[in-house]
Amino acid sequence: MLVLAEHDHGDGTPTHDHPHTHRRRPQVIARLARIEGHIRSIRQMVESDRDCSEVLIQIAAVRSAIQNAGKVILEDHFESCIVSAAARGDHDEAIEEFKEAFSKLVY
Amino acid sequence: MLVLAEHDHGDGTPTHDHPHTHRRRPQVIARLARIEGHIRSIRQMVESDRDCSEVLIQIAAVRSAIQNAGKVILEDHFESCIVSAAARGDHDEAIEEFKEAFSKLVY
Repeated sequence: MLVLAEHDHGDGTPTHDHPHTHRRRPQVIARLARIEGHIRSIRQMVESDRDCSEVLIQIAAVRSAIQNAGKVILEDHFESCIVSAAARGDHDEAIEEFKEAFSKLVY
Repeated sequence: MLVLAEHDHGDGTPTHDHPHTHRRRPQVIARLARIEGHIRSIRQMVESDRDCSEVLIQIAAVRSAIQNAGKVILEDHFESCIVSAAARGDHDEAIEEFKEAFSKLVY
């Protein structure tokens, strides 16, 4: 019951046919919360007409922070979905999942 | 007085020695507000354990949105700070500002 509740779309439909855990989820949530605050502070910088160059530095910083959050999500994804597919012997599925997830983050 | 108020750091110190306007500021503020909401919704996706691949798609989307907001800020910067420096005949300063701003956003 707990496992199902952790792995549904909120409407009861499962998101995976192979339930798994994401060790880094609290870290990802904390990173995203910080990024949200960072974006808000950049908006406030623009509203108070701070130097373009200062704003651009913060834009680059928050973009890196998002990329890093994506990497952590990808690490979790590798360790859970993909490794568990491999452990079940679904090597083709594991490789496809790896390629698909990787292509989403790196282009 | 209005010009000073628009171009200080909030503590009275000017941000530029060449006051200027940013035509696209309302657009930049609107974009950043949307990005903030987007990040919040991604956090909620992670909290409700949505598929990693769906989360990664949104991470890539919000990263593009940030990059595009940066481009709009850069366009404003070119049209105001840099072009006004060039108009004053400070071509070296204009080129340096261009290179510096560009290097912040593109790496």
